[in-house]
Amino acid sequence: MKRSVMELANKEYKEKSKLAQKEEKYYRDKKKEFGLKTLERFMKYFPDSSSNMKKGITFAHKDIEIIAKAIANNKPWAVVSGLNPSGPLHFGHKAIFDELLWMQKHGADVYIPITNDESFVVGKTESLAQSRKIAYEEVIPSIIAMGFNPKKTHIFVDSDYPDIYNIAMDLANKTTLNKAFKIFGFDQTEKGENPGTLFYRSAVQIAQILLPQYPEFGGPKPTVVPVGIDQHPYISLSRDVAEKKGFIPPAELITKFLPSMRGPKKMSASIKGSSIYLTDSIKVAKEKIEKAYTGGSVSAKFQKEHGGIPEICSVFQLLKYHFLNEKEADELYQKYKKGQILNKELKKIAKDYIVKYLRKHQLKRKKAKKKINKFLLKKQVKSILDYRKL
Amino acid sequence: MKRSVMELANKEYKEKSKLAQKEEKYYRDKKKEFGLKTLERFMKYFPDSSSNMKKGITFAHKDIEIIAKAIANNKPWAVVSGLNPSGPLHFGHKAIFDELLWMQKHGADVYIPITNDESFVVGKTESLAQSRKIAYEEVIPSIIAMGFNPKKTHIFVDSDYPDIYNIAMDLANKTTLNKAFKIFGFDQTEKGENPGTLFYRSAVQIAQILLPQYPEFGGPKPTVVPVGIDQHPYISLSRDVAEKKGFIPPAELITKFLPSMRGPKKMSASIKGSSIYLTDSIKVAKEKIEKAYTGGSVSAKFQKEHGGIPEICSVFQLLKYHFLNEKEADELYQKYKKGQILNKELKKIAKDYIVKYLRKHQLKRKKAKKKINKFLLKKQVKSILDYRKL
Repeated sequence: MKRSVMELANKEYKEKSKLAQKEEKYYRDKKKEFGLKTLERFMKYFPDSSSNMKKGITFAHKDIEIIAKAIANNKPWAVVSGLNPSGPLHFGHKAIFDELLWMQKHGADVYIPITNDESFVVGKTESLAQSRKIAYEEVIPSIIAMGFNPKKTHIFVDSDYPDIYNIAMDLANKTTLNKAFKIFGFDQTEKGENPGTLFYRSAVQIAQILLPQYPEFGGPKPTVVPVGIDQHPYISLSRDVAEKKGFIPPAELITKFLPSMRGPKKMSASIKGSSIYLTDSIKVAKEKIEKAYTGGSVSAKFQKEHGGIPEICSVFQLLKYHFLNEKEADELYQKYKKGQILNKELKKIAKDYIVKYLRKHQLKRKKAKKKINKFLLKKQVKSILDYRKL
Repeated sequence: MKRSVMELANKEYKEKSKLAQKEEKYYRDKKKEFGLKTLERFMKYFPDSSSNMKKGITFAHKDIEIIAKAIANNKPWAVVSGLNPSGPLHFGHKAIFDELLWMQKHGADVYIPITNDESFVVGKTESLAQSRKIAYEEVIPSIIAMGFNPKKTHIFVDSDYPDIYNIAMDLANKTTLNKAFKIFGFDQTEKGENPGTLFYRSAVQIAQILLPQYPEFGGPKPTVVPVGIDQHPYISLSRDVAEKKGFIPPAELITKFLPSMRGPKKMSASIKGSSIYLTDSIKVAKEKIEKAYTGGSVSAKFQKEHGGIPEICSVFQLLKYHFLNEKEADELYQKYKKGQILNKELKKIAKDYIVKYLRKHQLKRKKAKKKINKFLLKKQVKSILDYRKL
């Protein structure tokens, strides 16, 4: 029994529409469950807010008022965004770093922990050395190439900044295994998780988030952590610990995931072909776009008639996240929705942007490799060990 | 109804005899349960073995043959004995350090991790700084005063040697939460233990035990850990991890606990009045002996007739552990057993020894404070982070 192309296209359209609705519902429900607020009020006070916010990519927050106040009063504030160096950066990472760049322009001190210990203990790399290599050779050059200011950017690789473990120990007794298990749900079966993973998630990660509030960095200050919505519980744990420690509970900004090039999941190094890396060759990047999952139809005729589903289209989203401003994104959305632009043309636009971006980025990366030292955090945290006044 | 003194004395004698039997059974059962061996064979090959062994204080082992071989063949070997700096050292600690001194004379490199992180995360001190202060001001000077050779002694305070955390992370994925919970049985209730305690016990402690086998210290080598019998399961965990890492599983030597001055439990800083500290004033030390729990009787008459129970007598054991050789201890044991020596006289002997020892030790401590730097481990462990050959 062979079904007609139109029947297939119809079924596909219904499925993709459902996926779009499902995703929208996911973010709506989580936002409600976690008691997060929309960013409207924040944007009103800061009309020049990041394009991620304007485009609805960064769409919810907790306590962002403390950051708004710091900006308005020209007071110090910090943003912390860690990264697990199991491979080179991809465009999903770039979305977060774009936000960090915007924050730095508004006065933030940017802290970027490169968590090579996490990569290793969760089994994403073979050794601490391997994830350390990826940190210095792949990740950090790409971050620098994005244009951060070395005076206000503090990058550290966990293994090379072991003060982070002293801080983790300093904070560890402000929480319990009970809480850690409720939040992270570690696998305690025979082939389950290890003590390093537990300590990383429930202590080292919190140490990274609260580091800017230690005396060496000027003491308690408004801090924000940009995260995916699935990470909200971790931030709650760090807010809890901050309070017990006399620090300011960190705010959070929630960003929607950039979708995978292979379908409606987040872009992630763990899914093969999912990511376009900032280190991909032009050829490889073009191929990934060519094969990308779209919101369009098997039938061009159907798509012209009924339109596409831009919400779940990896190519449209890639363009929206990285290369279009709010107005341009809206226009392209409408055109795609109405069937006025098909996949071939959409992919062509994306390829042009990506090729241009990668060429430029990869040139900057070469220069960035020589500047790494300028960006590394060197100040040690000795206050927690000082006993002269005890 | 008033019972006669003789009735009381009789009851007391029976109770104390039972306690002595119970203790003997405890060690016998544990030794069997853990599959530990007696030291006879080891002593035959090394007639000059430590007096702790000769006196039966150190009474069981696992795998000590690897150490015997290293001594016989003049090969490098190491001993690791950590210490939790929640207060000054007491005579219970001294018993272990006496053993370490003997081992150093037979060629061992002695590693002494001072675990100020443990003291803090388990709640024995208020801060990392406080336990760090105790480490440098109380603990390390006493260790040095005992006569260790600075060329073969490597002391480190965890917070000041954070490489130990990189090693802990390097080893963490060689075990599981499942194993850690089976061995340590962490309290996961709401007011229970914290992630720092779990990580300390199941990873940092193992890192300390396996440290001498990292390339910076000459690679895999026979290592022994002197412990109380309750710590056997921890060593088993480290043997397990060692094997997975290509290291030599560490041997263990089991020492019986020096009893508390207050009764038949181990000498411990957590029981008030339990310990005679190496920093106690002469007056305080004498008082503690005066009030000490003995194996004697409420009635001198009864004790002369029936004798005492030296096995559970804190004063006899203090003398045996620290001031008598095998022959002297045997003689005193017999006399006490037969009622030929009463508590007053026993306490007098102990006071004389203790006063002499403390005077000498406390003088040496003053000089030792100036030598601390010579004993601190400075060599960093960078091999696990080196990616040049990856």
